[in-house]
Amino acid sequence: MADVIAVDVGGTKLSAGLVHDNGTLAARVDAPTPHDTDAEALFATLTGLLAALDTTGATAVGVGCGGPMDAHGEHVSPLNIPAWRGFPLRARLAAHTRLPAWLDNDAKALTLGEGWCGAARGERDFIGMVVSTGVGGGIMLDGRLLDGAAGNAGHIGHVIVEPAGHPCACGARGCLEAEASGSAIARITGAPPAEATPEVRERTGTLVGRAVASVANLLDLPLAVVSGSVALGYGDPFFAAAQRELDASCRLAFSRGTRIVPGALGRDGPLIGAARVALLHEPA
Amino acid sequence: MADVIAVDVGGTKLSAGLVHDNGTLAARVDAPTPHDTDAEALFATLTGLLAALDTTGATAVGVGCGGPMDAHGEHVSPLNIPAWRGFPLRARLAAHTRLPAWLDNDAKALTLGEGWCGAARGERDFIGMVVSTGVGGGIMLDGRLLDGAAGNAGHIGHVIVEPAGHPCACGARGCLEAEASGSAIARITGAPPAEATPEVRERTGTLVGRAVASVANLLDLPLAVVSGSVALGYGDPFFAAAQRELDASCRLAFSRGTRIVPGALGRDGPLIGAARVALLHEPA
Repeated sequence: MADVIAVDVGGTKLSAGLVHDNGTLAARVDAPTPHDTDAEALFATLTGLLAALDTTGATAVGVGCGGPMDAHGEHVSPLNIPAWRGFPLRARLAAHTRLPAWLDNDAKALTLGEGWCGAARGERDFIGMVVSTGVGGGIMLDGRLLDGAAGNAGHIGHVIVEPAGHPCACGARGCLEAEASGSAIARITGAPPAEATPEVRERTGTLVGRAVASVANLLDLPLAVVSGSVALGYGDPFFAAAQRELDASCRLAFSRGTRIVPGALGRDGPLIGAARVALLHEPA
Repeated sequence: MADVIAVDVGGTKLSAGLVHDNGTLAARVDAPTPHDTDAEALFATLTGLLAALDTTGATAVGVGCGGPMDAHGEHVSPLNIPAWRGFPLRARLAAHTRLPAWLDNDAKALTLGEGWCGAARGERDFIGMVVSTGVGGGIMLDGRLLDGAAGNAGHIGHVIVEPAGHPCACGARGCLEAEASGSAIARITGAPPAEATPEVRERTGTLVGRAVASVANLLDLPLAVVSGSVALGYGDPFFAAAQRELDASCRLAFSRGTRIVPGALGRDGPLIGAARVALLHEPA
């Protein structure tokens, strides 16, 4: 059995782990993402995590990283990590570990993980989503993860769900992220998302369902797998409202019956997905 | 130079032609689509068209057909052609011509045509659309035409653009097709789409732009190529309104600058695209 070093880079924490090629996470280490730091100090924190793992026998490195990225992941500029702007994370990790390294957007990586051994195991056509502080996603279609012109395909957070809605950080209005993300809920309600009323939880599910309905009708995909602290924290009322909206808005012969379900990989999903990014390039 | 027999099946007319492998249409014949007829009589009309072409030397048949279809085109049930429900058009044409035959949705075929030798020539990432009586589309991403679970990917007509909008024939509300198709415009204004006021033309462009913005943000694709009698008939005011909406709603680093332009292949586009469907499978 071959192992892959998995790395997940988020605005709140950095994680690294060792993942077997059957999808089992063998070990993990985490550290809070340092802020008020520079690019090299941040990279040193990450390599410090790797030093705490026994990586003997690992054959590759897989990375999931907050977006956006360009040149298909060669340079990363995670929105919530100002120290890295155009940082060549993939190449730096390859040089540091002397292993082949592969990197993709963190939500795309999680989508790969859910399709590998999570709630979409074996499905050729589905969207994976994260609804937490922000909203992200990845799309498997025809058995392939979609990339798009610069590698950002799957970014469902900027599908428009309320044409005259709230201003979005991106500059547009009524994007899903401006209506249903944790930061949007906090801004709209004036309270942390975890304290939201039942009405807000249901509205959030409805709007996520609306965006997924547009995607299911557009792409002929019958399944959405949703993770993230807001979606999983709101739980059943969120998923029930989202499913009601899907049932109302997916009415084509091919989109009727589209389902929305919680992700199954929990907190290990990002690392399992990051490992999958590498394994798709470097069969173990 | 090899030739392909191209067939386009629409609710208004049937067309057949001979297309060279450089994208040149050498000959075409058309007939109104017979209604009040049965499946076999309709097929006989189509084979009658083929008999009027000199198909000596043709190596394959490519077909674009109105949707929906299932089993990736093995059975077609064109919405506006009730005589064909689950009709095995591809297999029947292969048997009739004794040539390999390939079939796809007509809007997907047109998208292939525009990418082959039209307004998106050489582009790896774009959406092709038809805005006429209905609204259809096809998506090229990562250099590949997207299929989806049953072959219907690209169906932008059921992206939701007005959440509390008009009822759609599909059963949902506020789909692009329920707001901006020719039949929707006729229903909303009580007059043929060609007689629409400047306000209606602009609104139609705005709503098409809104759906394209959601798609560009979702899929990281920088170009939409739009054909069809409504879009091309409304012309500059339509495209200017659509571009304004895109400029307002595509604000991510990767989606800023997304363009919407008219298709370049005119009335030969459907046949050129149908030929491309075959050529992608059977290199001439």
